[in-house]
Amino acid sequence: MAKLQAGYLFPEIARRRSAHMLKYPDGQVISLGIGDTTEPIPEVITFGMAKKAHALSTLEGYSGYGAEQGEKQLRAAIASTYYGDLSLEESDIFVSDGAKSDISRLQVMFGSNVTMAVQDPSYPAYVDSSVILGQTGQFQKDVEKYRKIEYMKCNPENGFFPDLSTVSRTDIIFFCSPNNPTGNAATREQLTRLVQFAKDNGSILVYDSAYAMYISDDSPRSIFEIPGAKEVAIEVSSFSKYAGFTGVRLGWTVVPKELLYSDGFPVAKDFNRIVCTTFNGASNISQAGGLACLSPEGLEAMHKVVGFYQENTNIIMETFTSLGFSVYGGKNAPYVWVHFPGQSSWDVFSEILEKTHVVTTPGSGFGPAGDGFIRVSAFGHRGNVLEACKRFKQLYK
Amino acid sequence: MAKLQAGYLFPEIARRRSAHMLKYPDGQVISLGIGDTTEPIPEVITFGMAKKAHALSTLEGYSGYGAEQGEKQLRAAIASTYYGDLSLEESDIFVSDGAKSDISRLQVMFGSNVTMAVQDPSYPAYVDSSVILGQTGQFQKDVEKYRKIEYMKCNPENGFFPDLSTVSRTDIIFFCSPNNPTGNAATREQLTRLVQFAKDNGSILVYDSAYAMYISDDSPRSIFEIPGAKEVAIEVSSFSKYAGFTGVRLGWTVVPKELLYSDGFPVAKDFNRIVCTTFNGASNISQAGGLACLSPEGLEAMHKVVGFYQENTNIIMETFTSLGFSVYGGKNAPYVWVHFPGQSSWDVFSEILEKTHVVTTPGSGFGPAGDGFIRVSAFGHRGNVLEACKRFKQLYK
Repeated sequence: MAKLQAGYLFPEIARRRSAHMLKYPDGQVISLGIGDTTEPIPEVITFGMAKKAHALSTLEGYSGYGAEQGEKQLRAAIASTYYGDLSLEESDIFVSDGAKSDISRLQVMFGSNVTMAVQDPSYPAYVDSSVILGQTGQFQKDVEKYRKIEYMKCNPENGFFPDLSTVSRTDIIFFCSPNNPTGNAATREQLTRLVQFAKDNGSILVYDSAYAMYISDDSPRSIFEIPGAKEVAIEVSSFSKYAGFTGVRLGWTVVPKELLYSDGFPVAKDFNRIVCTTFNGASNISQAGGLACLSPEGLEAMHKVVGFYQENTNIIMETFTSLGFSVYGGKNAPYVWVHFPGQSSWDVFSEILEKTHVVTTPGSGFGPAGDGFIRVSAFGHRGNVLEACKRFKQLYK
Repeated sequence: MAKLQAGYLFPEIARRRSAHMLKYPDGQVISLGIGDTTEPIPEVITFGMAKKAHALSTLEGYSGYGAEQGEKQLRAAIASTYYGDLSLEESDIFVSDGAKSDISRLQVMFGSNVTMAVQDPSYPAYVDSSVILGQTGQFQKDVEKYRKIEYMKCNPENGFFPDLSTVSRTDIIFFCSPNNPTGNAATREQLTRLVQFAKDNGSILVYDSAYAMYISDDSPRSIFEIPGAKEVAIEVSSFSKYAGFTGVRLGWTVVPKELLYSDGFPVAKDFNRIVCTTFNGASNISQAGGLACLSPEGLEAMHKVVGFYQENTNIIMETFTSLGFSVYGGKNAPYVWVHFPGQSSWDVFSEILEKTHVVTTPGSGFGPAGDGFIRVSAFGHRGNVLEACKRFKQLYK
């Protein structure tokens, strides 16, 4: 624990935001920082949850402990909706209370004697959970990296896909696509190389697809679209950004039966044991919400929610593009990754906050290769996004 | 992981139950095994949850990510309801998705280089999470214990409170009162000795009070009733058995600011970091349910639920007492601990299942000192409890 650097990124931003609001009580702060959904959950989905809540007051509708792995019906619906063509089954799906919790449970399963690689920049929970589990060495202040973690640099020069020929072998590879924070989705060809790389090295690939529904081109929506991925990959995903479930808490992890340790033991058996020992399942009400999400009406409603945030993304991208910035991401993700070459991310973050009262996220919070960038999140009310973009235009005109 | 013995206890029982039902499709199986609530959740509570679900469909009522530590209002309500006289504050309370998850998060915080003590018998998640984190040595088949875990024997001879003079010093002590599975609640005098023991040894006491509302005498309901406990103890608790929330998922952990590591660093700061890194908070709908539980009407309703299961407990205790068994627990907990001297717990479990179609829990599943006992859970519909007791009377008449 002592190795961990300062605060976890998002609580740190929340602290700075609060300090700013104290300083400017009339500042009309707009948050495009933490990727937190803002739009109401479609009624077809909340109706399903309210119905379940009421049912819990009846003899017929009451249920106690559910299966730790999630309700059969929901596991089946996830399998058929997202993996229908990919020969994954209900039993390959583990329902969770969200991707962050499952990343931590996976880390507990891997234990402290593994090595890991992450994209640089990447969602901080991969690195921080690795540090907490004792997988890493000390933090090296000069390079802003932990010893024993392999940082796979992703930047405009390599099209945000790591040069695998320079990446050392690790036991575990965390990979997020569409990426948080860069917004980049890896192509089929790139993911094919990544799967082959994991196979050649005997690595387990933990693939975070929490933004897959934001893909607007033909990039793969699941790692399991890549032939052979079932033998090397675990996929973590979530309802948070599809249905506004950031507060409701529901996600899932796919551990295919085909994924084996080098001694032939199925990884899914270990994960099942972890889930049964350290978790009691996602809330039955959230799971009823998940089922409602995957009904025909729920799916349509989720696509509308995603479409709304995609429009926000376009507005933000157009704004920064029109101001002459190099802008990345956005096309396949609700995040816009704006380049401020030669500047420190925290300086840019502070200047934007100070002068426009808009909270963004400093790129360096996601890893050293994120420095010089800020992440602008498309999660916001339309009016706020438009107002923020107006202020950006005033600041950078 | 490889050190773990067979299955986690409750999934193992579920498997045996399923096998039995296949063998006797008309067997009318009654489950008094796993401690799973069976009675509907009072309407005042589900109404609160349904209201929150509906509100999530409105602009004003929508909320995304909540604080990882739980909503301020709920933390405050837990502090005032359960710790009002004990000078604990909102900020000492961490809301969770249940005790099992928080036990695991505590273990992640403690890491792999600690030693631990558990009551023998005890709730299996303490030991299993310890094994998974790598704190223990190999399982020793001859004594049915893991190396490096200190088993504190609790049996009728010592009044189910360990003889601390024979207990070796460990970094962590898990202690559950009212106890699962023995149903015994430690007295004020015993807990005062336990706190002193932890203080003398520089140990952290993890106190599981998930059954505190079942206490019917003047045994302490919280470890923090014991002077000095704030400097040595963490308390884990849950709404599961009070409000039928086993499926809804809501609990809490108290980490007092006064609890410091030997270097003076507050444990709460570490736990806060763990919670922020590995968890995104309990479901906001479950938290709305928790708030409803702690309203005056909700508290009254919870007491009725608890009272109902206490009546079940009395029926089970009277049954086994009338049959001449030595019966323990029950008075302050929804578990009855029945002695079958000289017999193997699994044999008794199997005989009862085979001859009465009633699922119980074999005491040895909770640790070697549990052998010769079975745990009978009072969680069941009244009709099922009465029918099970009728069958017990036929079997043992």
